[in-house]
Amino acid sequence: MDLLSIKDPTFLKGLSNEQLEELAQEVRNFLIEKLSATGGHIGPNLGVVELTIALHKSFDSPTDKLLWDVGHQSYVHKILTGRADQFDSLRQYKGLCGFPKMIESPHDVWETGHSSTSLSAAMGMAIARDLKKEKSHVVPVIGDGALTGGMALEALNHIGHEQKNMIVILNDNEMSIAPNVGALHNVLGRLRTAGKYQWVKDELEAFLKKIPAVGGKIASTAERLKDSLKYLFVSGMFFEELGFTYLGPIDGHNYDELFENINYAKKIEGPVLLHVITKKGKGYEPAEKDTVGTWHGTGPYKMETGDFLKPVITAPAWSKLVSETVRELAREDERIVAITPAMPVGSKLEGFASEFPERMYDVGIAEQHAATVAAGLATQNMKPFLAIYSTFLQRAYDQLVHDIARQNLNVFIGVDRAGLVGADGETHQGVFDIAFLRHLPNMVVMMPKDENEGQHMVNTAVKYDDGPIVMRFPRGNGLGVPMDESLKTIPIGTWEVLKEGRDAAILTFGTTIPMAMESAMLLEKQGYSVKVVNARFIKPLDEAMLVELLGVNMPILTIEEAVLQGGFGSAVLEFAHDHGFHHAKIDRMGIPDHFIEHGSVNELLKEIGMTTENVVERINLLAEKKQKRA
Amino acid sequence: MDLLSIKDPTFLKGLSNEQLEELAQEVRNFLIEKLSATGGHIGPNLGVVELTIALHKSFDSPTDKLLWDVGHQSYVHKILTGRADQFDSLRQYKGLCGFPKMIESPHDVWETGHSSTSLSAAMGMAIARDLKKEKSHVVPVIGDGALTGGMALEALNHIGHEQKNMIVILNDNEMSIAPNVGALHNVLGRLRTAGKYQWVKDELEAFLKKIPAVGGKIASTAERLKDSLKYLFVSGMFFEELGFTYLGPIDGHNYDELFENINYAKKIEGPVLLHVITKKGKGYEPAEKDTVGTWHGTGPYKMETGDFLKPVITAPAWSKLVSETVRELAREDERIVAITPAMPVGSKLEGFASEFPERMYDVGIAEQHAATVAAGLATQNMKPFLAIYSTFLQRAYDQLVHDIARQNLNVFIGVDRAGLVGADGETHQGVFDIAFLRHLPNMVVMMPKDENEGQHMVNTAVKYDDGPIVMRFPRGNGLGVPMDESLKTIPIGTWEVLKEGRDAAILTFGTTIPMAMESAMLLEKQGYSVKVVNARFIKPLDEAMLVELLGVNMPILTIEEAVLQGGFGSAVLEFAHDHGFHHAKIDRMGIPDHFIEHGSVNELLKEIGMTTENVVERINLLAEKKQKRA
Repeated sequence: MDLLSIKDPTFLKGLSNEQLEELAQEVRNFLIEKLSATGGHIGPNLGVVELTIALHKSFDSPTDKLLWDVGHQSYVHKILTGRADQFDSLRQYKGLCGFPKMIESPHDVWETGHSSTSLSAAMGMAIARDLKKEKSHVVPVIGDGALTGGMALEALNHIGHEQKNMIVILNDNEMSIAPNVGALHNVLGRLRTAGKYQWVKDELEAFLKKIPAVGGKIASTAERLKDSLKYLFVSGMFFEELGFTYLGPIDGHNYDELFENINYAKKIEGPVLLHVITKKGKGYEPAEKDTVGTWHGTGPYKMETGDFLKPVITAPAWSKLVSETVRELAREDERIVAITPAMPVGSKLEGFASEFPERMYDVGIAEQHAATVAAGLATQNMKPFLAIYSTFLQRAYDQLVHDIARQNLNVFIGVDRAGLVGADGETHQGVFDIAFLRHLPNMVVMMPKDENEGQHMVNTAVKYDDGPIVMRFPRGNGLGVPMDESLKTIPIGTWEVLKEGRDAAILTFGTTIPMAMESAMLLEKQGYSVKVVNARFIKPLDEAMLVELLGVNMPILTIEEAVLQGGFGSAVLEFAHDHGFHHAKIDRMGIPDHFIEHGSVNELLKEIGMTTENVVERINLLAEKKQKRA
Repeated sequence: MDLLSIKDPTFLKGLSNEQLEELAQEVRNFLIEKLSATGGHIGPNLGVVELTIALHKSFDSPTDKLLWDVGHQSYVHKILTGRADQFDSLRQYKGLCGFPKMIESPHDVWETGHSSTSLSAAMGMAIARDLKKEKSHVVPVIGDGALTGGMALEALNHIGHEQKNMIVILNDNEMSIAPNVGALHNVLGRLRTAGKYQWVKDELEAFLKKIPAVGGKIASTAERLKDSLKYLFVSGMFFEELGFTYLGPIDGHNYDELFENINYAKKIEGPVLLHVITKKGKGYEPAEKDTVGTWHGTGPYKMETGDFLKPVITAPAWSKLVSETVRELAREDERIVAITPAMPVGSKLEGFASEFPERMYDVGIAEQHAATVAAGLATQNMKPFLAIYSTFLQRAYDQLVHDIARQNLNVFIGVDRAGLVGADGETHQGVFDIAFLRHLPNMVVMMPKDENEGQHMVNTAVKYDDGPIVMRFPRGNGLGVPMDESLKTIPIGTWEVLKEGRDAAILTFGTTIPMAMESAMLLEKQGYSVKVVNARFIKPLDEAMLVELLGVNMPILTIEEAVLQGGFGSAVLEFAHDHGFHHAKIDRMGIPDHFIEHGSVNELLKEIGMTTENVVERINLLAEKKQKRA
């Protein structure tokens, strides 16, 4: 059938399993073709083709609520709800979002991006449904990886207790982004291979009936035993203990099993957990073979071969630069231990892990735990390196406040994907970290201008022993600058003048430095002499340099690829006024007070007025009256 | 024995169980007497007297690490580690902290205050120990309530997987602060009553041996079945599934059971969970009877009767005012649903719960889940009221960013205990919320000047339907002002002039308004005419009023009982400079960049320079040159 003609999922109701098989094949072909041009999360979506079709045939979306945990596996759902025609623009500026999005469709009832939120949201929806006395199904689809996130476990516990009707689909592809860690994974592993030894169960039940009923105690023991048989043979012990009816495990690529179990689940009172086994990358050989790394989420590729169409990049990837420098330092400093919440590949810790397997801990999707494990290590005079993306660090905010900053522990936090991240969009932009880190006492926050300074900052962070220290760095690659042979330390709280100037100063750091330099050159031509400062320490500020600038009434423009409220520019304002420089002419450029959607970083920067032209214009306004000399 | 003579816990090694019983009685008497004068967490501490004594006799602290989750049950530990002589100053300014504190003693190896952190920290310590090839025990003591917190579950999962040696003491008093909710509680409940039906186990084992070994499959099934018997009878199924050796349940007031099991646990390889049943308030009748409310943590009381020595307060408690106003509004608005993470009593939601039991959800210690349940409700056009303390909201930061603010959902967040909280100290000060809420797009943040405005703000929040809205309010009681009969709404983003003035303006909100008014009166006598503004909306600001003030170059002092970095004062600075008022003379008063310890709020405010005298002095500096007219 023509996928582009799909308006909503009602057409599925009339299709036979055979027709659904055909549809699945068409959806796979469509995804493999479209994503070869745009890139995207191909592996997770190929794995849920039959599951998504079965859910949309079995339920009546949007009356029934389908919630996609994490959300990068919602492409099939998007096709079935009338958005196939938008796949050419997938994850591109103003194009189709790579995650569920309410404004795109009424079938997107919950927006995701971070993991482990769907069960809690589903609980809210189930409570609302019951209070309104409506009839509908609430169906969160959650992966086995997302289940290790603390809030998902909080939710399981609460849902099991409240016994509201809900059908949780556990999409178990035996992977989160990396192979799953944690005991929960072992539980699932045993369930997968358990089978259903019906005859043993019958025998045991017969045996149990023979146990003499010596008062109520034995009766209830037998009762518990019988209950427990279900755990042992049908195997969902863990979930049953938490109050769920467990169904499965079933083959997520087999329509008969899917329909049988979904329909059964619909009749059960109270929460059900339907355990579905799927294969990530199913039906596309390159993606089936490598589910962990590149084929989880990809850039464009050659459809026939699975070869990636990547521009040749000679500069090192930031993640790799940082992790490899930590690895190098770890050879001398035995105290270094690396911790990642499920991102060993994204954070490029493979090299570290292979050289120091006993000093590398992947704790699963568990950011809170990751941060406090690091704190625990630091209490024992170890030097933990917490490798975490900016957007995911948000989930460990209280642990930063309470366990790390408050106890002033020597934790080195490498904040990856800081700033705009591009195609992943608003759920993944790393734009809040400065605002939520800067107000924490004892915290040092820094960002390097290039990979050479980056390696020195890693060294600085490892050598620093006065409390927590954060090095933020962007997604993508460095600038290709020459690298020093030996590592230095950078004095904490010192900035660097990149270009001298008399009429105004630009204070900025990290990715926006090239723009500042380019703007300064253009401004020279207009007759402005503009100083450019690499404000590599966001906290503490270089107070001496600020006093110098403010003392001569130098107009200042601060630039940051981060939210303006409470950001670096605000720190400069605070400093100026706290030190009596009430006449300081300070202008701030950064991310305005709304969420920034997906698109290329350059498109997004343009949209929010962060270009060379904008800088030139604002320096003109800021500096013109007093100092224009053209 | 003389508790004051205790220097460290080594003296315990030589004591008989009989002597330990005597010691326990002395510790109880000491706590009951001392806390009658100072107040404190009496219930939790009376419950762990024997447990703490047993742990300190069995382990060698601080070589062996004892970690006290939450930490308010560490008083007995403090007595046994040589701090009995400081109990007269418990929770008072410069006195003994109510939580573990590294600077107090080397026996305090991990500082707590928020729940559920101890397992993660213990994991970090266990990793460090093994890397250093040291021999020691790591012993986190965690309550059954804290176990429902997501990060504790993340930790259980990871610890079970890694199989490091660790002895987790599950202190199960069948309570968190409120009776436990959640399926996990049911699991524990079943364990408590399980007993050990050895003969049934033997019979079953005999039966299992009879099952024919048809290939490896059956053998492994039988193996699993046998393993599972342990779960059924010894009963730690849930924990065993996660990879722990489960021991218990045992009586936490019986030394024989405690020593037997602790000594056994020390010999086991891999993580052990020792399930200890204790009674909150044990040994003091008033505290045994009421474990939920007042006797969890108390003020001073009359030792003989348990009557509280409370000053007579006529003004309503803030928590009660807010919850009761929500209750009143819930009579008309069926969409209102209240959610609390384990604080139904602290948040004074009892009245709401009794009137609307089906619209009140206590989700347990699970702040992340609580916030996203609220978001889920809001997607269904309900009006969730999330009642949460400022300090605990920190744990739901990512859910605020990602689920609530980003989706712009109509969640009303009542932020209780905002500002300094006093005796609970640095782990509980509600001073970061403005800084972590203000940079979130779509967020409205407000704080009332008194309880009358407070009731109107609650009404405003309930009526508001443009996104999330936060009303923060302090610990303690209102001012005793007259209350309007009918509820009004306050226009979003409008401030209120409380006193006119020409020489300077004080912008402040909430608890610091009386100080501002008093200062203005004193300043009048010095010849300054000072305007005082109730800046009740922290976001959005009253832009019209700011333009007016800045337009006439009025010197401004902002005052906030919250951190200065990125706070309200910074918002005013940002506004001034964003709008070209570069000559604005703005001074900010608030919490400086370090953590604030325990003490009375007034003592703490004095310490950080937030008194009437300080305000007068700073207005003098700010306004003197231009406008002093005395």
